[in-house]
Amino acid sequence: MESTMRRLISALFLLLLITVGSSASPTHWRKRVREPCKKLVLYFHDIIYNGHNAKNATSAIVGAPSWGNKTILAGQNHFGDVVVFDDPITLDNNLHSPPVGRAQGFYIYDKKEIFTSWLAFSFVFNSTQHKGSINFAGADPLMNKTRDISVIGGTGDFFMTRGVATLSTDAFEGEVYFRLRVDMNLYECW
Amino acid sequence: MESTMRRLISALFLLLLITVGSSASPTHWRKRVREPCKKLVLYFHDIIYNGHNAKNATSAIVGAPSWGNKTILAGQNHFGDVVVFDDPITLDNNLHSPPVGRAQGFYIYDKKEIFTSWLAFSFVFNSTQHKGSINFAGADPLMNKTRDISVIGGTGDFFMTRGVATLSTDAFEGEVYFRLRVDMNLYECW
Amino acid sequence: MESTMRRLISALFLLLLITVGSSASPTHWRKRVREPCKKLVLYFHDIIYNGHNAKNATSAIVGAPSWGNKTILAGQNHFGDVVVFDDPITLDNNLHSPPVGRAQGFYIYDKKEIFTSWLAFSFVFNSTQHKGSINFAGADPLMNKTRDISVIGGTGDFFMTRGVATLSTDAFEGEVYFRLRVDMNLYECW
Repeated sequence: MESTMRRLISALFLLLLITVGSSASPTHWRKRVREPCKKLVLYFHDIIYNGHNAKNATSAIVGAPSWGNKTILAGQNHFGDVVVFDDPITLDNNLHSPPVGRAQGFYIYDKKEIFTSWLAFSFVFNSTQHKGSINFAGADPLMNKTRDISVIGGTGDFFMTRGVATLSTDAFEGEVYFRLRVDMNLYECW
Repeated sequence: MESTMRRLISALFLLLLITVGSSASPTHWRKRVREPCKKLVLYFHDIIYNGHNAKNATSAIVGAPSWGNKTILAGQNHFGDVVVFDDPITLDNNLHSPPVGRAQGFYIYDKKEIFTSWLAFSFVFNSTQHKGSINFAGADPLMNKTRDISVIGGTGDFFMTRGVATLSTDAFEGEVYFRLRVDMNLYECW
Repeated sequence: MESTMRRLISALFLLLLITVGSSASPTHWRKRVREPCKKLVLYFHDIIYNGHNAKNATSAIVGAPSWGNKTILAGQNHFGDVVVFDDPITLDNNLHSPPVGRAQGFYIYDKKEIFTSWLAFSFVFNSTQHKGSINFAGADPLMNKTRDISVIGGTGDFFMTRGVATLSTDAFEGEVYFRLRVDMNLYECW
């Protein structure tokens, strides 16, 4: 009987040590599981102002290098062009689908040799489905099939979220229209 | 006596199981409590350069669409205007109160139909009260009474912080002066 | 014998209470240890376009206040100048060392009285050593010897990272070239 007790108590001690050990390790050392707590796929549509499409345009050049102007994307792969946008977000890849929100922010073309850009923007939702916003920032080497940017925060339904968004160019028509598919994987959900 | 022991040991085992169970669940699955670890309310004051107020101005238009210029906010709800600012931060809503820091960064007007903007900026403190900085980004649909943006990071006293800041327009005079009230709720404090 | 048992069991209970107590406290209340999980030191090199160095320039003025232009940094400590860059990143302070990535993004000069700037950019890696990107944002009071900005996210090898980057100006030549040393301390590693 006594030896049984002892074994039990030893086992308890062992378990305790394991437990104490694991919970004492500071949060940021713990290997976190790379499994998203929320996934979302959305599309947004950018129609850049070119001097002739004021009615349909959803974006406009607002900064340009000395060799550029505000109605034609600059030479040298548009290096230095700054574009502000307010683009419709849709659930599928159809520009004319009912928008579920707006993608608002800016991008800059930032390389002379090839097309690359840098973006900072928000998805702003105000529908029955989603309320709140998701904020993004990151480099977009847009000639790559897919590229990852950071989800740096959120509000409302996306309160305090973080994650990674994978961008892919779903369509590109001349230098006026492009459509981006955004695959969001959120790893912090409050 | 023995049965008492057994009950005690059973209770211990149960507690252990609960403990082990709860600490084994990965951090990002845990439902986090939405209670701020720090709260702050501050005001900042923006006086935009209009060609006649060089001395007092704290901000200036630095980018504009092709239909705009650098001394008058553009038509179409200022769509495309990019404004850089270095605004005083005060504890109350008085422009002439001693500033406790500077709000530095930029905003863009990003919608043709109504006033909305997108901001990225820092609160930079260097006083006895606060040292360090808080970094913000997000959409500001400024016709709404309140709107939430993300606190995306911080340094110094605000090392690694994250949270949500609620903006409200506390005053708006012509197209020259506005005052924003910022209610910060920080949910990550290191 | 019995009293020994009792003491043992009391000790176990105490340990359990401590354990349960510590793991029940929500993550964001826990005092996190300020020890980086990853450290990195890198340099990047900015050569600003001045109208005469198109071949070597890695950055260009793309926005300016009404009193500025796109080839000469504006008066009043360059207040309002917006600069887009695509700068080589090197392991040491030699501009001609083989680049290990590109620093891409923008900075704005944001104070009339002294030189200060605000930056948002990414380190984009695609080498055998590092793949992925690190995203930064924050105020850069560049006359200070060191200044801290936020690491707001990352992708690839730097998936979901957060931290603080300490900038220091390692060289500054006229108004054309500067070199920044970036000491990254990452406190969240997945």
